[in-house]
Formats: sequence, structure tokens, C-alpha cells
Amino acid sequence: MHKRTLVKPDGRRLLLYGREPLADDLGAPSPSTAPHTPNPHLRWHPLRGEWVAYAGYRQHRTFLPPPEYNPLAPSRSTEHPTEVPDGRWDVAVFENLFPTLSLRAHDAPPLTVPTAPARGVCEVVVFTPDAAATLGRLPLAHVALIVDVWADRYEELGRRPEIAYVYPFENRGVEVGVTLHHPHGQIYAYPFVPPVAARELEQQRFHYEQHGRGLLEEMIAHEIADAARVVYQGPHVVAFTPVCARYSYEVWVAPVHPAPSFAALTADARRDFARAMKTVLLKYDGLWGQPFPYILAFHQAPTDGAAHPEAHLHAEFYPAYRMRGRLKYLAGSEIGAGVFTADSLPEETVKELQAVVVDVDA
Amino acid sequence: MHKRTLVKPDGRRLLLYGREPLADDLGAPSPSTAPHTPNPHLRWHPLRGEWVAYAGYRQHRTFLPPPEYNPLAPSRSTEHPTEVPDGRWDVAVFENLFPTLSLRAHDAPPLTVPTAPARGVCEVVVFTPDAAATLGRLPLAHVALIVDVWADRYEELGRRPEIAYVYPFENRGVEVGVTLHHPHGQIYAYPFVPPVAARELEQQRFHYEQHGRGLLEEMIAHEIADAARVVYQGPHVVAFTPVCARYSYEVWVAPVHPAPSFAALTADARRDFARAMKTVLLKYDGLWGQPFPYILAFHQAPTDGAAHPEAHLHAEFYPAYRMRGRLKYLAGSEIGAGVFTADSLPEETVKELQAVVVDVDA
Repeated sequence: MHKRTLVKPDGRRLLLYGREPLADDLGAPSPSTAPHTPNPHLRWHPLRGEWVAYAGYRQHRTFLPPPEYNPLAPSRSTEHPTEVPDGRWDVAVFENLFPTLSLRAHDAPPLTVPTAPARGVCEVVVFTPDAAATLGRLPLAHVALIVDVWADRYEELGRRPEIAYVYPFENRGVEVGVTLHHPHGQIYAYPFVPPVAARELEQQRFHYEQHGRGLLEEMIAHEIADAARVVYQGPHVVAFTPVCARYSYEVWVAPVHPAPSFAALTADARRDFARAMKTVLLKYDGLWGQPFPYILAFHQAPTDGAAHPEAHLHAEFYPAYRMRGRLKYLAGSEIGAGVFTADSLPEETVKELQAVVVDVDA
Repeated sequence: MHKRTLVKPDGRRLLLYGREPLADDLGAPSPSTAPHTPNPHLRWHPLRGEWVAYAGYRQHRTFLPPPEYNPLAPSRSTEHPTEVPDGRWDVAVFENLFPTLSLRAHDAPPLTVPTAPARGVCEVVVFTPDAAATLGRLPLAHVALIVDVWADRYEELGRRPEIAYVYPFENRGVEVGVTLHHPHGQIYAYPFVPPVAARELEQQRFHYEQHGRGLLEEMIAHEIADAARVVYQGPHVVAFTPVCARYSYEVWVAPVHPAPSFAALTADARRDFARAMKTVLLKYDGLWGQPFPYILAFHQAPTDGAAHPEAHLHAEFYPAYRMRGRLKYLAGSEIGAGVFTADSLPEETVKELQAVVVDVDA
């Protein structure tokens, strides 16, 4: 992996990654040149016991690109520079222009609940310079590079004392609110362990202390033994619809043996992780012969300085549709009570995914 | 309040409520006559430490009503009977034909995670026989009757030994997935305390034990003292955008002094609760001159037999739009990490609601 760190005219960081050596003359363009001084803040929600992030400037973005302007495409116009340079690179990472979290956040309003500057990092991960590609259709070696980038970001961001949790994710499709179609993901680096991860880690820690073995490791062993819901099984990594799936076509991807993060995976395991991801992604797009929208979340060990023997890296895909043409709405039961109501059985929807034949090496 | 309990031909319960005495000849129609034998089940999600409900038959509903057929309108055709009778009643409650939870659930598949029959009750609450009405435009006395119905359901369902939590809610608008436009809400009676309520109660219990005073009571006292975010203040009940609102235009409605449930409210307080609700609903619809979609969730004390001095009845409105014409999507940060990212400040959006003049007594 080749990597270069640059700084944009407005002070934001740009990182370029390549499988081959990067071009010498890569610039660091930016659609904005004024110094980047975001000041998001956090407010404590006493009833839920969690932080809420406020970034009011996201609502009133003054940045109005001309139609067909793609800020994630290689910059080829001096009049409308984009976020990434023209030239030879494979993956680009830059700080979000409208971040929910920023290390530059400097103060928070005094209120009747605790508040704090929303210190953290929001990065955009441009998966490829090719606006017409998709994560699943990229060559396997390119997907493997993206896995390496996630590992690099985990290490670099996690090393910062302000950062307690590094969270890569991808929102894909207008159905989940995406407006930029250029293939990209995001990374949020939080100053606290976020609630969903905290809850999972609490369950995992309890199980680890009771049984001396990882909870997810045990779930995976059961899924492999059962085999009914397995979508991919490689030498290191497995993809499956969990027996307790909340979404139709939900899939998890994880190493069979516990690894706390992408950074802890061997080169072979990373390549296998990439193969598992590509398999799932191609099956998703093949299912109905159309791009399959989802939220993709990666859960890793916190970077809060504590030991986390209970942690086990995994990806969770949450599909937007519960069946062809029918969106799954999270409504009263899911949002107001936290109880997921599944209209289909995991054993049924996974059969459809298993039946989709894909060629990962094509 | 006048109440009558009937049984439909397929065995489901129908309850009719009126401000005036009910008509003598009210029937209990049903679009289905075959005995109602739903068998949903629960699976334990070990990683999240929560139950997931599976009701596969919801996906493949065989019930295909003719276009324009409204199953919640008074039944006026013997060929296509609806769920509620023609005649004099104000509010109707019946068991959902496709329930996520059912007291008739009898067995669950043996799997590698704990499973259980999904015993509980899913009720539909028809707010009025008038398909063209909305909850907010109903006369104040009618809204007060609905509050009485929520209290009645809390008591009757909560009395059952299988039921640990009675949860009324309303999904409003196609934006949150609603397909029936007839004004109605729902009640889910769970056999466990659902995760969101459990988390809130945990926070409230901790605060109560530390300070000998309710957490929400204290938050409300702060909101009233601050006054900046108050939308309605009556003799017993207040409506406000909380300082830690997660959604744009989010509003909570609650009695100023703790009451564990609707059933515990005095007649005066119930009427004030109705007035607060109607005020918020009219402001919502007046904001952009169009029906305002939302999820409305009521949190009360569990009915699990334990004492809950920490509980404090409240309603939370979660609007679907973050600004006019722009939906709020819950995506990577909210769904995958559990961190809400607000694009607007509570102090800003509440000003718009405060500015909408409404006449609750009209």
C-alpha cells in the first residue's frame, strides 16, 4: 500500500492511497478555500443516557454545486475544483467539509444539560476515482486495498487521545438518503464509544467473562455448523445471515476467529475479508438485477486505551428493502420502543442470496 | 366514557368507546371469518441483548382489498365488511389482523439462540369513524376520550400476567410507511420491557435513587424555567422541544408532576394532556400548511408487577422532515452507531412552532 498525506487550501487533510506508487504531482484541491473552522457541539440526553451531535451549519449549506458537478470525482476544472486530485491514485480520504465532529470544535453553549465541543473526525472515503463504479464491482485487489485503508484509518485515528471509537460505514442509495452517487463511504471517529457499539461490547464482555470465549466467535461457530444461513465461507472469513437478523437480507461479515479490528487482521485475512465483501455485494446487486441499497456498519474494538478481549471485528449490512419494491420503514415499534419486527424469516431471505451466482474473480 | 367489548367472527376482540351511550345494535364485523390463529415468535439477539419479533405472514398478506376499500371505515357492505361497525361510536379498538405479537402464539422454532412464542397484543386504535379527520382536528372532548381510551388499554392490557409493557404509538404519513390514511394509532403490549423504555427507565431509576426526584420532572422544571423551548403550558401538562432534541421539530408532552401512566392522571390532567396534544398537532399541520408526518411514541411505567417510582408518562413526537421538503434519514451514524446527528438546533426549530397560532377550542 502506498500512502501520501496532503493538506487542502482550507486546512483539511487529504490522504491518497494506491496499490502502485502514487503519481508525484498529485494536488490537494478543495471546493472551498476559506479556513475550515467548524464548531459542532454535543448535548447530553439525560433520558436516553447518550450524546447528541449538533452541526447546525449542515442544514444551511451555502455550497451549491452546479448541476452534474461531482465533488468526489477527480478535479479537472480550476473554476469548480473538487475534493480529490486528477492523477494516479486508487482510494482517497479527506475530512468532510460539513462535519458532525471536528477536532477544531472549540466551545459549546452552556445549557441545562451537559454540553461539550463535538471533538472527533468525519472523513469521506472515496472508493475509486471512477464515478460509475460500485464497491462490489471493483477488482478484488482494489477492495483489498480499501480494507487496508480501513485498517490504516483505525490505527491513525485511533492513536489520537481524543478518539475513543473509529467507525467506518457506507450509506448506499437514495433510499437511505444518499445524494452523491460516486462510490464512497465515511468514517466517524467519536470521542466516546457510541451506544450501539457500547451495548454490543457490554454483551460480549459479559459472555467473555462467563465463558472465556467470544460471543460472536460462538455465534459464528453455530452458524458454520448449521450452514443454513451461510453466504460465503473462506479460509479466514465468513459471511452469513444471522439467526437473529432484524432486516430482510441482513448479512454479517466477520473473521471466524476473533480479531479486534481491521488493523489486527493478517494480510491473508484482509484479502479474504475483501473476497467475502465482494461476494455479498455482487449477490445483493444480482438479487433483483439492480443496485441494492443498504447501510453498512463496521464494529471494531474501541481505541479508548482499555483492553478489549471481548471485541470481534464485524460488518453488518442493513438492507433498505424488506422485499422487492417494498421499503422497510423503521416506525413506532423500532424507533419508539426499540423492538424490531421482521416480516420475513432469516432462513427464507438468505436462500435467495445463496441462489445468486457471482464471479468474484471476474 | 361508555365502553362495549365484542368478539369478531374470527375470534378477535373489538372494543367500542363513546362519549355518549353507544348504539344498542353495534355489530363486530371482520374482513376475515376463519379463526384467527397467528403464531409469531421471538428470537434473542445475543449481540444486542434484545428480542426480535418474527411474523412471516405479514410479508405475504393474502388479504387484497379492492381499491378504495378502507378497512377502518364503518362497515356498510356485507360483501366487503370492514373492521368496525356502522353506527354510533367515537373510538374503536380491535386486535390487528396481522399481529407482531399475539396471546395465541403457541410455539417457537428451536434454534441456536433462545426463542419464545411472541405472546403479546397488537391493537389498532381507530381515532374516529370519520376517514377524513385527523387526530389534531378532532374536537377537544374527542381527543380527551382518546386519552381515556389509552388509560383504559393501559389498565386492561397491563393487568394480564403476560404483559410487561403497554406501548401506544401512532405512525402518521406515507413518509413513515403508513398505507392506511384513516386516522388511527396502535398499541403494542409486550411481554418484556422494550429496549428504549428500559434504557430510559434505567436512567430515571439511577437519578431517582441519587436525588430522590424524577429525572424527567427535573428536566421539565428546567424547560419551564428557561421557557425558550416551551410550546404549550397548561395547569397540569407541558409541551416542549427538549434541549437535547434529536429530531428537528421534536416535541415532548408530559404532565409537569410525575404520573406513571395515563391511568394515573386525574380527569383534569387528562383533559389538559388532550389540549397539549391538540395544540402540538395543529401547530405541526399549520407549520407548512400540510399534514405533518411523524412517529408518536408514549412511554409509561411497565406493568411487570414491580414498583416504578422513577417512571413519568410522556409522549415524544419524532418528525419525518428535518426541514421543509427534506426528509431526515436515519443512516450510518444513527442506525449503525446509535449517535443522532442533528442538522438544526432545538432553539431554532421550536421558534417556528411557537410562531404558529392555533385555536384549540375551535
